[in-house]
Amino acid sequence: MSRWEPNARGRLERAALDLYREHGFEQTTAAQIAERAGLTERTFFRHYADKREVLFGGASVMEEFFVETLTGAPETAGPLDAIAATLHAAGALFEGRYEFARQRQEIIMASPELRERELNKLASLSRAVADTLERRGVPADAAHLAAEVGTAVFKVGFERWIGSDGTRPLEDFLGEALRELRALTAGC
Amino acid sequence: MSRWEPNARGRLERAALDLYREHGFEQTTAAQIAERAGLTERTFFRHYADKREVLFGGASVMEEFFVETLTGAPETAGPLDAIAATLHAAGALFEGRYEFARQRQEIIMASPELRERELNKLASLSRAVADTLERRGVPADAAHLAAEVGTAVFKVGFERWIGSDGTRPLEDFLGEALRELRALTAGC
Repeated sequence: MSRWEPNARGRLERAALDLYREHGFEQTTAAQIAERAGLTERTFFRHYADKREVLFGGASVMEEFFVETLTGAPETAGPLDAIAATLHAAGALFEGRYEFARQRQEIIMASPELRERELNKLASLSRAVADTLERRGVPADAAHLAAEVGTAVFKVGFERWIGSDGTRPLEDFLGEALRELRALTAGC
Repeated sequence: MSRWEPNARGRLERAALDLYREHGFEQTTAAQIAERAGLTERTFFRHYADKREVLFGGASVMEEFFVETLTGAPETAGPLDAIAATLHAAGALFEGRYEFARQRQEIIMASPELRERELNKLASLSRAVADTLERRGVPADAAHLAAEVGTAVFKVGFERWIGSDGTRPLEDFLGEALRELRALTAGC
């Protein structure tokens, strides 16, 4: 087998999702994933640190993306406007990833360990958003609140997207959740 | 030792918190807690199912309280007003519990396992709130969003209370966080 494998990462991801769904995440090994993908275990570990990274590798990418996009928002944007711009841009990260996201969610919901890890990733995202808002000059308390609420909107919008038929992009659902938040809290 | 022990539960809680802080949660056993409290292990297990319940038993009580209070809110109250009333009432649950809450938080933050459990408890609270709002006639999507946002406000207000000097009650911090949420999202 040559070192270069066409679309090895995509094949490994596909094989991993199939096996996690067929046998459960806990029961699946990296060796089985590689075999199903027609690749070596070594190739698996060139692409993923472990079998969890197939599911959670994207979370770190997303966190970095949130931090960069928030940092780049216009100086004059308030915390929620900066978050709104970031949520809008985040849709692009998930273009063509609806099927992956849907199947990933199904696997995560089936495993208490993975559900906890997913909650951890969201908590980490919220902390990163709060830190970034603080660096933008938002006071710590306000930054923390905006980050928690922004993460809640992301979670809700994301789950709605996954529950949809996949024809509309993620940013539609995130924008909708944000508009509903404004309506929910409008005292005027 | 007689079966009846004055304030056994309080003594066990006190001993557990001390030991978790001195030696770490993972390293502490129920037997050690009982010994420190001057009680038998059997007495410990009459009060707590395991050593985690000393820290998390209150979470189920709180969830029930949220469900009951939300259910009892005036029929005309919108989702966020019903949540606001519940947050206000929740302060009473924590009266005289500032020191416990502060030390509990310190223990939880020191343990990845406990942090994950805490996130789980908050996720469970959010689901219970969403279900209750749905039973009040709020459409599922709106109920889910309001519950996530309400839980975020609770988390932020609670953490601010724990970070305070304990002279002001929890409901002050929850009310403040809710007012800030309204200001944050006000487009008018």
